[in-house]
Amino acid sequence: MKTVLMTAFEPFGGEDVNPSWEAVRALEGKQIAGATIVTRQLPVVFSEVLNVLNQALDEIKPDAIISVGQAGGRSDITVERIGINVDDARIPDNAGKQPVDEAIVQDGPAAYFSRLPIKAIVAAVREAGIPASVSQTAGTFTCNRVMYGLLHWLQTQGSSARGGFIHIPYLPEQAAQHPGAPSMSSANVIQALEIAVRVTLEIKEDLKVVGGATH
Amino acid sequence: MKTVLMTAFEPFGGEDVNPSWEAVRALEGKQIAGATIVTRQLPVVFSEVLNVLNQALDEIKPDAIISVGQAGGRSDITVERIGINVDDARIPDNAGKQPVDEAIVQDGPAAYFSRLPIKAIVAAVREAGIPASVSQTAGTFTCNRVMYGLLHWLQTQGSSARGGFIHIPYLPEQAAQHPGAPSMSSANVIQALEIAVRVTLEIKEDLKVVGGATH
Amino acid sequence: MKTVLMTAFEPFGGEDVNPSWEAVRALEGKQIAGATIVTRQLPVVFSEVLNVLNQALDEIKPDAIISVGQAGGRSDITVERIGINVDDARIPDNAGKQPVDEAIVQDGPAAYFSRLPIKAIVAAVREAGIPASVSQTAGTFTCNRVMYGLLHWLQTQGSSARGGFIHIPYLPEQAAQHPGAPSMSSANVIQALEIAVRVTLEIKEDLKVVGGATH
Amino acid sequence: MKTVLMTAFEPFGGEDVNPSWEAVRALEGKQIAGATIVTRQLPVVFSEVLNVLNQALDEIKPDAIISVGQAGGRSDITVERIGINVDDARIPDNAGKQPVDEAIVQDGPAAYFSRLPIKAIVAAVREAGIPASVSQTAGTFTCNRVMYGLLHWLQTQGSSARGGFIHIPYLPEQAAQHPGAPSMSSANVIQALEIAVRVTLEIKEDLKVVGGATH
Repeated sequence: MKTVLMTAFEPFGGEDVNPSWEAVRALEGKQIAGATIVTRQLPVVFSEVLNVLNQALDEIKPDAIISVGQAGGRSDITVERIGINVDDARIPDNAGKQPVDEAIVQDGPAAYFSRLPIKAIVAAVREAGIPASVSQTAGTFTCNRVMYGLLHWLQTQGSSARGGFIHIPYLPEQAAQHPGAPSMSSANVIQALEIAVRVTLEIKEDLKVVGGATH
Repeated sequence: MKTVLMTAFEPFGGEDVNPSWEAVRALEGKQIAGATIVTRQLPVVFSEVLNVLNQALDEIKPDAIISVGQAGGRSDITVERIGINVDDARIPDNAGKQPVDEAIVQDGPAAYFSRLPIKAIVAAVREAGIPASVSQTAGTFTCNRVMYGLLHWLQTQGSSARGGFIHIPYLPEQAAQHPGAPSMSSANVIQALEIAVRVTLEIKEDLKVVGGATH
Repeated sequence: MKTVLMTAFEPFGGEDVNPSWEAVRALEGKQIAGATIVTRQLPVVFSEVLNVLNQALDEIKPDAIISVGQAGGRSDITVERIGINVDDARIPDNAGKQPVDEAIVQDGPAAYFSRLPIKAIVAAVREAGIPASVSQTAGTFTCNRVMYGLLHWLQTQGSSARGGFIHIPYLPEQAAQHPGAPSMSSANVIQALEIAVRVTLEIKEDLKVVGGATH
Repeated sequence: MKTVLMTAFEPFGGEDVNPSWEAVRALEGKQIAGATIVTRQLPVVFSEVLNVLNQALDEIKPDAIISVGQAGGRSDITVERIGINVDDARIPDNAGKQPVDEAIVQDGPAAYFSRLPIKAIVAAVREAGIPASVSQTAGTFTCNRVMYGLLHWLQTQGSSARGGFIHIPYLPEQAAQHPGAPSMSSANVIQALEIAVRVTLEIKEDLKVVGGATH
C-alpha cells in the first residue's frame, strides 16, 4: 500500500480557520488510487515549519506529497509551478516574525520546479467542473517556504517521490468577511484535492498543454 | 398562504446553463416563512422578457417577487439597489437583438429603487457564511430591464408588494471554462436565496447599515 | 461668449491632493469651443456641498456644467450615466459625517440621467488615445450627490443647460502609495476634460454606440 | 565611461507599439550617473531573441543591463525578482511558435534571481511619485526568456555585471483599446527607467524592506 502525505496550515493573518486544513483533514485515512492519505498540520511559523515537515517526511516516507495552502483573493485551485529560495514576508507569521529577503537554504539552488503533473491536475480538476489553473508563483511566505523546502528535501534525499504545492481560495465563510473576495466551497476543494492525488499517482507523464503567462 | 414569485433566466452569452435558473427552480413549491415559492424562467430577449414577467405577475398576484440573474465575474451574492430606465446591450440577446440607449418605458421615471430590504438581506446572508454585498448597478442588459419592469409594474398597479433583483456569480462548472473567474456553489446560492425570501417576508424595516460605494 | 462651469473636489479619505481639482483648476479661464471655463472647488461634506454648488450655479448661470471627482481604483476616465437619489457613505466625509440611505432630495425622483453626450465624449477621448468608458454608477458618496443635485437643480430651474459628472483615476503620485492601484497622468486627465467640454458644446445629438454592461 | 545596455521588445499580440521600446529608445545615448545608455530592440520570437541579446552582450560588454518588457494589465512598474527556466507560451510569438513547457537552457538551473537592487529601485521610483512594486513572476513568455537568458549568460561568462528585468504597463493609447486596462504615460515610464539605471549604478547593497507576497 502506498502512502500520500498531505500537509496544510493552521490559520494565520487574523483568520479563524485555514481552508487548507479544513479540506486536508477531511481526507485523513482515505484510500485513493491504491494509496492511503496521511495528513499533517503545519505551523505558519518560518522558524518551525520545515522542522515539522521534515520530521513528517522522515517518519512517513511517503510515495507522494501534496502540500496545500490558503491563497486569499484567488478564485480557483492553483497548482504551483515553482518554489523559490527566498523568504520575504508581507505580514508577520504566527510567531510575530517577518523575514525579508532571506534564503530558505543557504547556497541552495534558486528554485525547484514542482514534481507534480501540474497540467494534468489542472485539466482533470476543470474536467470535474471545478475552476483551476497553473500558478507561476507561490509567493514568498510560508507556503513557498514549504514548497521549496519539500522539493529540496526530496532532492537532497535522492528521492524520486512526486511532490508539490497547491493553493486554494478562501472558504465562503471567510470571504463573507472580506467583501469582494472570491471563495470556493469546501466540497469543491476536497474533490479537487482528491483528483490531484489520483492524477499524481496515475499519470506518468504530464500533459503538454498551455498553462503559461505572458507576464 | 402567501405566494412569492421567483424568476430567473435561461442561458445566454454562449453558456450552457444559467445559474439563476439552476438555483431558483430548486425552490419551486418550497414553503418559506409561511409562503409558497412559485418560479418562472424568463427569456434573455429584450422584446419578450417583460411580457412573460407581466403575465406571471397578473396570473400569480404574488405577495413578493425576487428576480434573479447571472453576473459572471462577480464574486458574491449582490442585492441590487436600483433599476434604471435604459437598455444598452453590450452583447446581443438570445434573439440576436442589441438595443442601445433605448428607454424601457417611454416617459417612465429614470429609475426605481428596490423594494427589498437590501441591507437586511446582505447582513443575513453574510451571517450564514455566504459572501454578499449591495450593488449600486444592475447593468443595462435584460437583468436591469426585468428589475425596472417589475418595479414599474408594481408602481403602476398600485401594488404594495415587495420586489427586487439579486445577481449571483457563475457556477463552478462555468468558471472552469473562464480562467480566473470567481464562482459560487449551487448549494450556497440556494441557501442565500432562501434567506432573501425569509428576510423579505419577515423584516418590516430595512437595516440602517453602510452598503454604499465612494464611486 | 458662453460659460462652462467645472467643479471638482477638495482632498478626502486621507489623500493630500484630489486629482479632480488638480486637473480642473488648470482649466480656469481657458477658452474652449467659444466658451470660457469657470471653476469651483467643492467640499467633501454632505451638508455643504450642494449649497456651494447651487450658489455657483446661481451666480455663474453657466451654459454647461461638468463636475469631476476622484475614483480611486478605476483605470480610466469614466463618464457617468446616472445620478441616484441616495446618500450612503462608505467612509466619513470631511466633516466626519456618514449618512446611510438618506434621500438627497425628499420626494425627488429616484434618479436623473446625465445631460452630457456621454457616448460621444467617451469616443472622442479614446480617439485621442486616452482610456475612457461609460460608468453605470457614480456611487453613493458626495460625487453622486453632486451629480444628482446638479441635475435636480437644472430640472427644477427649467434650465436646458447640459450637465453631468466625470470620474477620474488616482494621480500616479497617489497610486504610488496604494500598491496595485491604477493611475492616470494629470496631462492626460486635463486633455480628456478639454475634450469633454468641446464635445459637450459641439455635439448636438449623442452617438448611438454600445456603452452598457451586462450587470 | 561605463555602459548600460537597455533592451526592449518589438510589438506583439496584435499591438501597434510596444511601450517598452517607446521608452527605452528615448534613452539611447543618454548619460546617467556616469554611464552611457546603449539600447537594442529584441524580437518577440523564442528562437531568435537570445541570439540577438547575446550578440549585443558580446559586442557591447555592458557594465549593467536592464531589460524591459510590456505587461499589459499591470498597473505599475514591476521590478522582477526571478527568471525561471521554462518557456510556456500563452499566445504564439511573432513567428507563430508557441512552445509549451520547454527548458530555456537544457540542464540549466531552475531559476536565477535578479542582480538588480530590486527593493531600492522600487523605493526610489515610488519616491519620485510613480507607482512601482516587486513582482514575483516574470511569466513564461519571451520576457522571462530574456531575463533567464541574460542572467545565465552573466553566470556562464563569470561576469559580475548587474542585470535584470522590469515590466511596464500599457501606454494610455493602448489601454484606450482595452476597456478597463490600466496604463502609464510614457513620461512616467521613462523617468522610472532612468531612476532604475541610476539606482543600479549607485546603490551597492539592496534595501532590506518588505516586497513579498503571501501567495
